[in-house]
Amino acid sequence: MNIGIDMMGGDYAPLEAVRGLRLYLDEPNVNDPATLFCIGQQEHVVPLLEQHGLHAHPQIKVIPAPEVIGYNEHPTKALKEKQQSSIAIGFYLLATGKVDAFLSAGNTGAMLVGAMYSIKAIEGVQRPTIATFLPKLNGGTGLLLDVGLNADCKPEHLNQFALLGSLYASNILGIPDPRVALLNVGEEESKGNLLAQATYPLLKENKQLHFTGNVEGRDVFQDKADVIVCDGFTGNIVLKMAESFYDIAAERKLAQDEYLQRFHYENYGGTPVLGVSKPVIIGHGISNAKAFKNMIHLGEKMVSSAFCDAIRSSFTQSSTGQ
Amino acid sequence: MNIGIDMMGGDYAPLEAVRGLRLYLDEPNVNDPATLFCIGQQEHVVPLLEQHGLHAHPQIKVIPAPEVIGYNEHPTKALKEKQQSSIAIGFYLLATGKVDAFLSAGNTGAMLVGAMYSIKAIEGVQRPTIATFLPKLNGGTGLLLDVGLNADCKPEHLNQFALLGSLYASNILGIPDPRVALLNVGEEESKGNLLAQATYPLLKENKQLHFTGNVEGRDVFQDKADVIVCDGFTGNIVLKMAESFYDIAAERKLAQDEYLQRFHYENYGGTPVLGVSKPVIIGHGISNAKAFKNMIHLGEKMVSSAFCDAIRSSFTQSSTGQ
Repeated sequence: MNIGIDMMGGDYAPLEAVRGLRLYLDEPNVNDPATLFCIGQQEHVVPLLEQHGLHAHPQIKVIPAPEVIGYNEHPTKALKEKQQSSIAIGFYLLATGKVDAFLSAGNTGAMLVGAMYSIKAIEGVQRPTIATFLPKLNGGTGLLLDVGLNADCKPEHLNQFALLGSLYASNILGIPDPRVALLNVGEEESKGNLLAQATYPLLKENKQLHFTGNVEGRDVFQDKADVIVCDGFTGNIVLKMAESFYDIAAERKLAQDEYLQRFHYENYGGTPVLGVSKPVIIGHGISNAKAFKNMIHLGEKMVSSAFCDAIRSSFTQSSTGQ
Repeated sequence: MNIGIDMMGGDYAPLEAVRGLRLYLDEPNVNDPATLFCIGQQEHVVPLLEQHGLHAHPQIKVIPAPEVIGYNEHPTKALKEKQQSSIAIGFYLLATGKVDAFLSAGNTGAMLVGAMYSIKAIEGVQRPTIATFLPKLNGGTGLLLDVGLNADCKPEHLNQFALLGSLYASNILGIPDPRVALLNVGEEESKGNLLAQATYPLLKENKQLHFTGNVEGRDVFQDKADVIVCDGFTGNIVLKMAESFYDIAAERKLAQDEYLQRFHYENYGGTPVLGVSKPVIIGHGISNAKAFKNMIHLGEKMVSSAFCDAIRSSFTQSSTGQ
């Protein structure tokens, strides 16, 4: 298996990316490790690989990419003009089958544009989406989506996010028959804004889902659902509030609490772009070594479980009226 | 000054309401206390007043209301059919000038319907709104609105919420020249869903506001703005997530933390219905004695500062093109 890694993306790149490779390759349980295609500026990446004893490692392959897309660059423009950038080359390798998955903690917009235009959405998926993990008070982990890719949504989009989230929860997180809920302002079916009111019956009638009804803001960290669906505006605000929990905990010197620790989102790794035809993972800008290692594992899991095929198959089912 | 209190509203009514009156009247700094019109079922209220030594208190006046509107009753229907309920009688007293403010921790819907139809919105106010307090990490307190009254909003509604929130912050909370921000998914002007994108220029051009731009979910508890504006769907979810902080803190045995204490929303009292022609305050269902006391103080402050007149005057200004 070949995993493409943008060595230049992230606030602490390429150092944390290199340290992430080291963590991944040092794991005793990696029997059949992936080959890691390290895409980036050779003059920065190679010395770090050498320092970490990785330059001659059989699983490491350096792919030179002389250009870098910065955080504040316009995604479409940058991808077009910087074809020798690590993100553009990563998508080229993915599109041509040289790598099986591509991950980056770089410019999120450029990663999304690349995912949409170089490898494209799976047929039937109207809007690819991104999810975040929700640490549950009972120790479990839930999913929330969309968290920012689609600020304005139609009911059918939310219905599709529900299916994408449900497949992610079952195939990647190993949650059997995931419970799906709609984020809303009350529990009753009639509650909500026009979007939520129109989405509820779609979810209720969707036979591919185990829909359990509405959940409220107070339920986000409770074990009421495995997958919570909402528009990307609301989801982004919920995600960033959740991220701020950890900062509040740190400020109040409560960050040693085992549960609040789980709000330390930089440990999680990245989120897949759900609904595109090949595995693409976007990491947080502040990704650390552990996050990079986790992203490699996520990529492996998406490839080995043929996750994109599972989505393809479910969306073929739904478009044929099931 | 006369304050009408629904003694039957709230999960712990009428006991916590009575204990709230006791707290209010026991305060050493109340030189010229309001007369408290205690509206409710005599057979329940009077014995409790007697137990708390309040039955013959010169500031206490019992107003019999044989009926009660329950939590799950349909607001419009209940108000129409139960004209002898504490909420219906409270609004009658308010509308006829027998009391200067009316407060209840009862059926929120019935309180809102009563506010809209018995005393009505101030001329020019398209949508009355409700706000919540946001405890800031630096010790300050901000406002967020709308938090649930208006699930679907137009840009002009958010522009009006901004003015109502700004007037509340300056007149009642004593924050001079309050900074107003728009809740959004990014800091740049162009960010957001269609609503946020269309609202930004209205706020920017509104000369009655000190608009400081967008804030994100991570900024909600930071000192970036005094008043944060959003639609009622988003605001309700943010509010309920914030409320769940306290439960999380309690579950994790961190509730003794001074900052997390401030998420104990039942202490806050109620929220005024902003934009209606007389002072109406809605309390949380779980309001305790301290919350009732705080609601009485809020009612006093709204009356003594002629808050509704300040709104009236500002909305006259805005409708004449200033």
